[in-house]
Amino acid sequence: MAQQLKNESITARDVDFAKWYTDVCKKAELMDYASVKGFIDYLPYGYAIWEEIQNYLNKRFKEDGAQNVYLPCVIPTSLFNKEKEHIEGFAPETLVATYGGGEKLADPLVIRPTSEILFSDMYKRLISSYRDLPKMYNQWCSVVRWEKTTRPFLRGAEFLWQEGHCLFETREEAEKNVKTFLDIYDDCGRDLLAIPFMKGRKTVHETFAGALATYTIEALMHDGKALQSGTSHLLGQGFAKAFGITFQGRTNALETPWQTSWGASTRLIGAVIMVHGDDNGLVLPPYVAPVQAVIVPIRQSEPGVLDACKALYEALKKENVRVKLDDDESKTPGWKFAEYEMKGVPLRIEVGPRDLAKGECVLTKRVNGEKSVVKLADLPAQIPTILQDIHNAMYAKAKAFFDAHIHEASSIEELNAALDQGGFVKMAFCGKEECELKIKELTNGGTARCIAEEPLKDGAKCPICGEKATIVAYFAKAY
Amino acid sequence: MAQQLKNESITARDVDFAKWYTDVCKKAELMDYASVKGFIDYLPYGYAIWEEIQNYLNKRFKEDGAQNVYLPCVIPTSLFNKEKEHIEGFAPETLVATYGGGEKLADPLVIRPTSEILFSDMYKRLISSYRDLPKMYNQWCSVVRWEKTTRPFLRGAEFLWQEGHCLFETREEAEKNVKTFLDIYDDCGRDLLAIPFMKGRKTVHETFAGALATYTIEALMHDGKALQSGTSHLLGQGFAKAFGITFQGRTNALETPWQTSWGASTRLIGAVIMVHGDDNGLVLPPYVAPVQAVIVPIRQSEPGVLDACKALYEALKKENVRVKLDDDESKTPGWKFAEYEMKGVPLRIEVGPRDLAKGECVLTKRVNGEKSVVKLADLPAQIPTILQDIHNAMYAKAKAFFDAHIHEASSIEELNAALDQGGFVKMAFCGKEECELKIKELTNGGTARCIAEEPLKDGAKCPICGEKATIVAYFAKAY
Repeated sequence: MAQQLKNESITARDVDFAKWYTDVCKKAELMDYASVKGFIDYLPYGYAIWEEIQNYLNKRFKEDGAQNVYLPCVIPTSLFNKEKEHIEGFAPETLVATYGGGEKLADPLVIRPTSEILFSDMYKRLISSYRDLPKMYNQWCSVVRWEKTTRPFLRGAEFLWQEGHCLFETREEAEKNVKTFLDIYDDCGRDLLAIPFMKGRKTVHETFAGALATYTIEALMHDGKALQSGTSHLLGQGFAKAFGITFQGRTNALETPWQTSWGASTRLIGAVIMVHGDDNGLVLPPYVAPVQAVIVPIRQSEPGVLDACKALYEALKKENVRVKLDDDESKTPGWKFAEYEMKGVPLRIEVGPRDLAKGECVLTKRVNGEKSVVKLADLPAQIPTILQDIHNAMYAKAKAFFDAHIHEASSIEELNAALDQGGFVKMAFCGKEECELKIKELTNGGTARCIAEEPLKDGAKCPICGEKATIVAYFAKAY
Repeated sequence: MAQQLKNESITARDVDFAKWYTDVCKKAELMDYASVKGFIDYLPYGYAIWEEIQNYLNKRFKEDGAQNVYLPCVIPTSLFNKEKEHIEGFAPETLVATYGGGEKLADPLVIRPTSEILFSDMYKRLISSYRDLPKMYNQWCSVVRWEKTTRPFLRGAEFLWQEGHCLFETREEAEKNVKTFLDIYDDCGRDLLAIPFMKGRKTVHETFAGALATYTIEALMHDGKALQSGTSHLLGQGFAKAFGITFQGRTNALETPWQTSWGASTRLIGAVIMVHGDDNGLVLPPYVAPVQAVIVPIRQSEPGVLDACKALYEALKKENVRVKLDDDESKTPGWKFAEYEMKGVPLRIEVGPRDLAKGECVLTKRVNGEKSVVKLADLPAQIPTILQDIHNAMYAKAKAFFDAHIHEASSIEELNAALDQGGFVKMAFCGKEECELKIKELTNGGTARCIAEEPLKDGAKCPICGEKATIVAYFAKAY
């Protein structure tokens, strides 16, 4: 049966995972390649997933006091050069406009790759007293990074994201903010995307250009590689000092605020595809799925079938289910089964004459192919529980895979062997940047994803310099 | 009393309307000028208005079958030059990127001023059969137009908008789509913004570059000038032919689809400000207001006052009212009254010890200063009606102003005299572009806003060429 349903137009994951990924992106109509190299068109089915992510995050952000704004899409070069570390991180991949209205620009404009600079420049004008703090502004926008190698949703010349930029009176408040918003991303994984994340602070080498500390959530893809899925930065006072942001404090002294920024992007769509997908295509978690349930009528020309399907459609809509009724007579039910399976619709509902005679319908869950028979009249009341069950099953499956792919190592040999199995490898090291770089070099792309929050074992040493280890980090191959 | 409340920091409208406008934009914290000339920062209070407009339009668009997508923010110059008329309309105001990743680009990239070209380019890849039609895609994004003279929300180097781009099998379907989505904009005025619009087709000279016909909604500002607030274009087959979009029709013949596009922008925020605002600042219609009601405690240190305010706040939140409780002890109630008046909050609710003793609160409507006393316990149930009443009063006030500013003319002298009074002036003319241009020249900026849908009077002649008139148009000075 599974073989019959096999979608032949999609490369199997174990044959070529990269090809499987782009096959799914294209066949499920999530995106299309645009005429501009490295850029993509986000098609309705892909964009709708992003809208659900936006809905979730916007609600959470606002509950925690963030407010949405929109700042210019360009940064004057003169402004861009103000924060040295930051500019070094981003300058090599900028797109720069040099002509406006047919005239050469005196101060060329960088198309924003990220907006720390624009927010700092704005805050300098808006802030004068401790009474103006905290400020927690967020924007939804696209950013441009001139990448050589691009992949849909994972790395692109342009991608969609949100970037929160906040100012606080004290370091303590800034640190709390960094963690609160990282937790929101983590919750988004658990509650919306059915994805477990590895959560923690980045090592020195992986810290954001210009930040004191970077915190990350990292998901584990089916091929054993990690995907950085959201970051939250303690920027400290560097930008504020570079841009001259000061405020009159409670004791009347002039003080420098503490800054944070946090962002998540359409990469999360890539995470959903690679965590949950299978050889038949997409498998979407119900709360982020553009279509949560599809009704497929069987022998729809027989009396009553279509009417029952329509009644069920209306009843499910009333329960706020994103439901679709596919009554296209030119397609067979078998074609439809394969199509919606490929598109990852979480729940399929079949209604045929025999079901109808018994007042029933047949449900099939995409995640595990599990079938059940439910009374038509009971389905609207039961659907919230059914969707929650599907979500739970998907999270449990992803969590089991995640947990089964955590290894330990105490030497480069062990690290390499473990990395070859895929997943995260816990290893202690001295924490110095030169040793971190050496590990990267010796492991064919294994990088420290984040620092583990656990005590060091007695006598643990750095496998590179042999000195006393100071941190335990999770290493992985990563996108 | 009105004099006491007069906000001295805002220029009076009749003294200098342009200054009044920018004063309101700045003082109400709707926006800030960015460091890049012509660009603005959309601050939380301004952006929240845009979010309400988005919520309204998105819901309506989706109900009518539109789907959201996102396309690249850049257009290769080679592609941009494909549709001649269109390029002539937009080329003079483009921002062009010439460097990517430090290297000179072989094909410079235009930052999108509008996306007909990108959508046409995409549709060419997506469409092959009549079964693929209709396509109704919309995107929310920012566009860049290198304007010399800019004003917040009205004309900017970058603004936020939505642009719908659709393809149909037949001209009839395309024409229907153009009107359906124009009606949605019109409804948005009536139901959300409390703004009446003049609605109709544009004259030849005012038609969008590359379109067969353009339809518009035009609002009337307090200074008697019109503001184009949304447009819907019948693009015909020009773009499709230029980009080679074809499909296999029902009879197997290769056919060319019919195209439309429609858009509305953050200009609508400008319309809200200039239609409803007064000398004390903003006046926001309740359904688009970020804060619909503000609770101001009076003598809040007295027992029970703050508790009653908090209970009311929670009760109103439960009714989905966007309510704010301002219990800042460092500000007087008088300061708060002026502040929220300036910010245009539709309803102020005062609760003091004397009100509390009677179980009451005092309501003040921003639109007309009307006061009433309501039982605290009754307010949550009554609030939907109160907000609807405010909305209705604002719409009626705007409609009365609109209706009082429609004049008629049959000569250039009459037209000029009527334009000086402000508002729309109905005048018949031959409809030829050269006469339309001549009228513009002779009237110091009076332009045809749209064609009136009414029969020509017998013997009506064009005031320029003296030939038989073919259309009646509404002329106005415009932003």
